[in-house]
Amino acid sequence: MRPIDRRSFLQLTGAAGAAGLIRVPGLPSALRAAHAAEAPSAGSIIHGKRPEMIVHNAKLGVMETPLQALRESHFTPKEYLYNRTHFPVDGAGAWVATTDAPSRERVDQWEILVGGLVQRPKSLRIADLAGMPQVERRSVMQCAGNGRSYYWAEAKTPGSGWKHGGMGNLRWEGVPLRALLDGLELGPSEHVRFLTANGKDVPPVAGGADLVKSIPLAAPQLDDAILALKMNGEPIPLIHGGPVRLIVPGFYGNMNVKWVTDLMLMAEPTPSALMQKTYRMPHRQVQPGKFTTQDLTRQNSDPTYGFAIMSVVFAPLAGETVRGGNVPFRGVAWNDGVVPITEVRVSLDQGRTWRAAEIDEPDGPYAWHPWQLQASLPPGSHEVWVRAIDAWGRSQPIDGLTTWNPGGWDWHGVDRVSFQVA
Amino acid sequence: MRPIDRRSFLQLTGAAGAAGLIRVPGLPSALRAAHAAEAPSAGSIIHGKRPEMIVHNAKLGVMETPLQALRESHFTPKEYLYNRTHFPVDGAGAWVATTDAPSRERVDQWEILVGGLVQRPKSLRIADLAGMPQVERRSVMQCAGNGRSYYWAEAKTPGSGWKHGGMGNLRWEGVPLRALLDGLELGPSEHVRFLTANGKDVPPVAGGADLVKSIPLAAPQLDDAILALKMNGEPIPLIHGGPVRLIVPGFYGNMNVKWVTDLMLMAEPTPSALMQKTYRMPHRQVQPGKFTTQDLTRQNSDPTYGFAIMSVVFAPLAGETVRGGNVPFRGVAWNDGVVPITEVRVSLDQGRTWRAAEIDEPDGPYAWHPWQLQASLPPGSHEVWVRAIDAWGRSQPIDGLTTWNPGGWDWHGVDRVSFQVA
Repeated sequence: MRPIDRRSFLQLTGAAGAAGLIRVPGLPSALRAAHAAEAPSAGSIIHGKRPEMIVHNAKLGVMETPLQALRESHFTPKEYLYNRTHFPVDGAGAWVATTDAPSRERVDQWEILVGGLVQRPKSLRIADLAGMPQVERRSVMQCAGNGRSYYWAEAKTPGSGWKHGGMGNLRWEGVPLRALLDGLELGPSEHVRFLTANGKDVPPVAGGADLVKSIPLAAPQLDDAILALKMNGEPIPLIHGGPVRLIVPGFYGNMNVKWVTDLMLMAEPTPSALMQKTYRMPHRQVQPGKFTTQDLTRQNSDPTYGFAIMSVVFAPLAGETVRGGNVPFRGVAWNDGVVPITEVRVSLDQGRTWRAAEIDEPDGPYAWHPWQLQASLPPGSHEVWVRAIDAWGRSQPIDGLTTWNPGGWDWHGVDRVSFQVA
Repeated sequence: MRPIDRRSFLQLTGAAGAAGLIRVPGLPSALRAAHAAEAPSAGSIIHGKRPEMIVHNAKLGVMETPLQALRESHFTPKEYLYNRTHFPVDGAGAWVATTDAPSRERVDQWEILVGGLVQRPKSLRIADLAGMPQVERRSVMQCAGNGRSYYWAEAKTPGSGWKHGGMGNLRWEGVPLRALLDGLELGPSEHVRFLTANGKDVPPVAGGADLVKSIPLAAPQLDDAILALKMNGEPIPLIHGGPVRLIVPGFYGNMNVKWVTDLMLMAEPTPSALMQKTYRMPHRQVQPGKFTTQDLTRQNSDPTYGFAIMSVVFAPLAGETVRGGNVPFRGVAWNDGVVPITEVRVSLDQGRTWRAAEIDEPDGPYAWHPWQLQASLPPGSHEVWVRAIDAWGRSQPIDGLTTWNPGGWDWHGVDRVSFQVA
């Protein structure tokens, strides 16, 4: 895919016009220059990332997309896609620090072991996968920590202070996972209950936890999972898991294992600390100071598998000033894809009344569901709140802090955006 | 290792002299020539194997060592070592059909995945293993079907008609397995109970059972297991599992997985049919016609892990004629190495009386235990019986047919050899 020029994209989509945008807030230019001088730019950390990216952790290459950029494309370009890697992207990990595709040599040598508790473990090459029928999935990719910073109003947690930009909407192409596993005739044991995926990334220190992930084979999203070779029509960029990434649409990013080297059918989930100790949500509401990450067990918590239902406002953005009269509101909603999103409700009076936004026909159950609404508003300060609801009645808490948890996962509180009408 | 010339070996060891050998029986030369014309020679099936080898299955490269050759070397040369491979050694499997070492390129590209139910799966190269401290194991390698043909006096079974030559005594060098697993800091789950090994060989047909093997981590022999890179001081020949073979001394050959590509710490044993349906011994004595391989279950049988205690006579061999007077008897004994062999008893009157043979100090618990005895015998027809006993009192049944089983495994009846005194 050719890099998209922001200005031409805005012109093409008319997004800025549709939002009736007058002024986009940002850092004053002097401050911006100072910031640039101090912090390494996104592109110097991960080759090809745009300077607008908000860097959370330079060492690990963790960065999110400003909503100003995110809202400009229905499918998030690789230059703007958020990134979360778990190990340093310098030194031994530097091979992934680029939005470029893997080299031909790397692709040719790549090998995936598919095995575990099976009769017949198999070894696959990328060429094997590329020779099989490909399907496309249009789906949100999102860090399980996306929105974490909003929890900090209650109490600080470890982890990066994500706002809403730890996500993107993407097109993935690859081989359907269940068909692949069936076709390989692995002969799984009756004890098999999990698919465990591991990638080529390794902890930088001996004894560090590796990012290994186990997905229950009963998860309905596995029906739509693919071993993806392409993202947005191109070979998957190295930083996003090329040459091959497990895409489980509707599942948080950490379950979408990058650089897949082994897929194991297992009786038990991986003991990886990144599965068993972190990336877990407690079953019940917990209190800061009274429940820590050390208290998370396999009994009292679940891994962050599928997305909590969520919606965000793309226009207006916080602090923007829009023209008065008929103000256009828009944004996106998504959930874990298991049942459809049925409603997106918008409140302009801090939750006292709600009106139904129009939801575009989505690209599929896992993709962004764009929504919009127009409302006449007088000049002055306003807030817009948005809340999605799905066919199971799952929705977003009015007070997102009720799901506070020591890992800061799964933020999906009603989005509240303050803006001005001129 | 340089190929050993039989004649010079005999001269060096004085074996022929010690046995007081006069005549070695064999095929008449005319018949031998006809046989050679009809059947493919061992060397044409597996490059480097000697023509004296007894071919059981040309397609699979299955062949055993005549005892005349086996007794000539304390450590069995690669040219004479028996072979059992599970898939055709032609076509896609032809890369293993040689006693040569793997090419440098193959060695360089080899990768071993060590993972399963662990925190941190690891990938190893041969160079990684070669750079670690190496240890030597001197141990018997033996097919679980060795001696199967003797069961056929009771009832035929599937499988090759091995006599006693489906075994050899070998020196292996490599990396201690438990230390390796510990050093990798894999972080196994509390559920881990088995080490599952798989090799690069694959079934020639889709849906065929792969040779995958699971070893209980509690098995004491695993304390002495190594990931071996050398056999008899040389890189392991391809046909015998080079560049890397799992050596679990005291365990039958099928558990000593060749061409190791993955080692998995697992909660359950592999479902491979070559683990769960075959290579299994029923717990109780069974009757031909009343119990078939189809009746074997995980509940009523165990995998063929460790060797049953066994001894064979190397001199005289069946049909040989020896000089009268003080007749020298010799042979070897071995068991699973868990407890020492304490006695080797020899009977020259068909089991009525037994005398203790002298047992050489063995090279270790898993190696051949050479034994010898001299006895004065009058001219005429004689039989020599031999029976080993270990510190747990485990011994060989006088009537080996009592362990008849539908797979024909685990033959370890008292060896009975008829010979002539001149």
